[in-house]
Amino acid sequence: MTSFTPPIHGSNPHLPFGDQQDSPFYGQDILSVKQFDRAKLEYIFGVAHEMYEMVARVGSFDLLKGKILANLFYEPSTRTSSSFTSAMERLGGSVIPINNVSYSSVTKGESLPDTVRTLEAYADVIVLRHPEIGSSALAAKYAKKPVINAGDGAGEHPTQALLDLFTIHEELGRVDGLTVTMMGDLKYGRTVHSLSRLLTLYDVKLNYVAPEMLRMPAEIKAEIGAKGLPQAAYESLEPVIGETDVLYVTRVQKERFEDPSKHEELKGSYVVTTETMAKAKDEMIVMHPLPRVWEIDMAVDDDPRAAYFRQMEYGLYIRMALLAMVLGKA
Amino acid sequence: MTSFTPPIHGSNPHLPFGDQQDSPFYGQDILSVKQFDRAKLEYIFGVAHEMYEMVARVGSFDLLKGKILANLFYEPSTRTSSSFTSAMERLGGSVIPINNVSYSSVTKGESLPDTVRTLEAYADVIVLRHPEIGSSALAAKYAKKPVINAGDGAGEHPTQALLDLFTIHEELGRVDGLTVTMMGDLKYGRTVHSLSRLLTLYDVKLNYVAPEMLRMPAEIKAEIGAKGLPQAAYESLEPVIGETDVLYVTRVQKERFEDPSKHEELKGSYVVTTETMAKAKDEMIVMHPLPRVWEIDMAVDDDPRAAYFRQMEYGLYIRMALLAMVLGKA
Amino acid sequence: MTSFTPPIHGSNPHLPFGDQQDSPFYGQDILSVKQFDRAKLEYIFGVAHEMYEMVARVGSFDLLKGKILANLFYEPSTRTSSSFTSAMERLGGSVIPINNVSYSSVTKGESLPDTVRTLEAYADVIVLRHPEIGSSALAAKYAKKPVINAGDGAGEHPTQALLDLFTIHEELGRVDGLTVTMMGDLKYGRTVHSLSRLLTLYDVKLNYVAPEMLRMPAEIKAEIGAKGLPQAAYESLEPVIGETDVLYVTRVQKERFEDPSKHEELKGSYVVTTETMAKAKDEMIVMHPLPRVWEIDMAVDDDPRAAYFRQMEYGLYIRMALLAMVLGKA
Repeated sequence: MTSFTPPIHGSNPHLPFGDQQDSPFYGQDILSVKQFDRAKLEYIFGVAHEMYEMVARVGSFDLLKGKILANLFYEPSTRTSSSFTSAMERLGGSVIPINNVSYSSVTKGESLPDTVRTLEAYADVIVLRHPEIGSSALAAKYAKKPVINAGDGAGEHPTQALLDLFTIHEELGRVDGLTVTMMGDLKYGRTVHSLSRLLTLYDVKLNYVAPEMLRMPAEIKAEIGAKGLPQAAYESLEPVIGETDVLYVTRVQKERFEDPSKHEELKGSYVVTTETMAKAKDEMIVMHPLPRVWEIDMAVDDDPRAAYFRQMEYGLYIRMALLAMVLGKA
Repeated sequence: MTSFTPPIHGSNPHLPFGDQQDSPFYGQDILSVKQFDRAKLEYIFGVAHEMYEMVARVGSFDLLKGKILANLFYEPSTRTSSSFTSAMERLGGSVIPINNVSYSSVTKGESLPDTVRTLEAYADVIVLRHPEIGSSALAAKYAKKPVINAGDGAGEHPTQALLDLFTIHEELGRVDGLTVTMMGDLKYGRTVHSLSRLLTLYDVKLNYVAPEMLRMPAEIKAEIGAKGLPQAAYESLEPVIGETDVLYVTRVQKERFEDPSKHEELKGSYVVTTETMAKAKDEMIVMHPLPRVWEIDMAVDDDPRAAYFRQMEYGLYIRMALLAMVLGKA
Repeated sequence: MTSFTPPIHGSNPHLPFGDQQDSPFYGQDILSVKQFDRAKLEYIFGVAHEMYEMVARVGSFDLLKGKILANLFYEPSTRTSSSFTSAMERLGGSVIPINNVSYSSVTKGESLPDTVRTLEAYADVIVLRHPEIGSSALAAKYAKKPVINAGDGAGEHPTQALLDLFTIHEELGRVDGLTVTMMGDLKYGRTVHSLSRLLTLYDVKLNYVAPEMLRMPAEIKAEIGAKGLPQAAYESLEPVIGETDVLYVTRVQKERFEDPSKHEELKGSYVVTTETMAKAKDEMIVMHPLPRVWEIDMAVDDDPRAAYFRQMEYGLYIRMALLAMVLGKA
């Protein structure tokens, strides 16, 4: 339309400074688990494992010194927000925390594309949590800097799925050949859907333990069936606890039930206790995306097979890996 | 009253450590555009341009390493808060983010002078956003450390005015001789008032495009007239778009209108579209303080003359320059 | 229960990296003033004084570079939160600010032990402010990383008591032999209770100046009496202002009074003015935990004996000392 070239920003307004542009994932967005094939997962897990080793050895290091993360949360999530903040800080980078978006520009009617294009003037990478499906993809469409989806409503939360799979990989040393039992709210639980999709890249057996009204959706089962993976549904953990390598428990929210007594009823059937653990293999792990309410008894916490707090820590390494990768430093 | 000298804080409670005390602006407050003459503006723009070049080359650097900014926001402003945070972090400094003031000490009845004198025990510089006119001047009166006004209600927002002028300076290479057309809410728009005042230091022509009820206030026009600058008011952009070097668009808030249909009506007349841009010079820029709502069509964003997102980035360099200057490092 | 050892976290999930494990307080929680004897206090004050000298000389330094503080505030407290943030940043460390907990996981029903065990996956030390008595002790029971109590409701606020005592120690050069007069709300004021307890480790005389309904509780007086320290209660400052070395003033909250006129009445009797200061010793100090409302007239602020803003700064050094100590770096 015009040949006018502004003096400063003429050539490349966001020319990278010293980044390894040949690094895989450099400059890419992390939006969906669908982006990953098995080779990419193995690569990420390799970097995440290196992050674990570096943190164990030196705590923090200056890989991303001078880089800035805009941590943009349209809905609160202490866990995810803190995890990304820690990941950036352990890599020597800085964070712009933006937690109160609802009180701010947005209330003045600003669109997500405009917010993102403003923030990328200040930051090198944007982590976005937003209540609407597709919000991260929309943000990524407009942003020149990498966008990492930290949950887009009922959509995806890919870094959660990656950390879940990485937890299995690190704790049990492999993913192929495992029996993964998912229990709780399998209908609305975003984490089990994303994890299931990632698991189709491996050779696993899937068990679903849920009350009738909270069963795994048909479309997820169809996806998994299409890959030829064995799957079976149960209304109780009893028949499968003995064969389970990974017991993935999710929160059953009271709000899902019209009849509160139904919710109370479930508390007896879908809870993991020390009795449950007595029937489980010696080499297995219990996972939970947290926060938990009553689904896992606190007496289980001391069992070395209880992996849910370590799972949080694996999340740190996954997020360190992703940040380093998209910024061209890994 | 007494000659008692406390042992620690006797001589100078806030002796600077290694600062360049001969640096202009060292230890000064940034409260109002009235502080600046043309020489000072040129100096600031010179430092801001250096900041741009350093960021382009190395991203961040350690000029303010070890320095701490208290980012004190009594009302939310993601944009301004994030910009100062990024500015401090790109200079290697740290930030104490204080965004929820209304929930805190203030609700216990603490005065602004006390809050500021407390914070300066923890920080080296204070950025203050407060809904009341004169709040920054009050804070600066009591604080020994520099205070930067990040907006005091209907008062001033000097760093916005500086970044606006710096945008013109960098994008068009000069300010003298330009025709600046301001459009939208010129009555309540704090940014156009401050920018107008700064422009009186240069040789420019000013056009005001606004509906009758949102016209530029008489006292601003009087100030500009007193400097002998040509100015003219219009109710449509049409007559002046062809001569415009800088089109500065502001948000027209629905709340200004008693009759909502009036607001709807304006949407047709005071919007910048690709048709508008077709009538504009090849070498001109469109600016907006953001957030925008409907005043600039998103189709205009891809036009290289659309400078409003770059404007955000210039704000980063201006704030880096100011922080470095008041802390004696530039 | 099982001999299964997860591959990564087998030996020691939180092996410290290069910490001085022989350092006193290394890895310890700071929960209550009852933890400290006189030797420990002197040690802390020695470290805090070194912190003061380092800040005076270089502003910030990298003692805790790479370390991360989770600043977990279940209720707002700008002052305390900012002080810990500054302390960590002046030591070169980073902060995960968590101020909106009520909006977050907690509303999903998560327990404090789970929140803390999650956060310690991301941080090296946890500072906790929580409205319930005993919350910090509960957190510390579950956390492997050190927990610092930043106020647990009507319980304790040990770092406030430490900074109060450190202020006396630094400003007057000693604690033994002093006459400490506490004035205001001595019944509900947590700070005067904790400071009184710490003062029993020294040889001091205590005066209590309060209206009848806000007198020092009998159990605190009993504790002090048991150590053989002289103490006396007054309804006016007049009889003791002349002998006072430390005048510790607290806020009298309007909410304590059923009859608002009673509160108004007190404003005349329990306020420190320049007239009060004229009757005071030349070598004495006035302290206040802040925020103040009307208890100290602003005209007193310029008196060199007004130590309440310096008190905030001493708080910084105490918190720097505690962070360095529990992380094994002092």
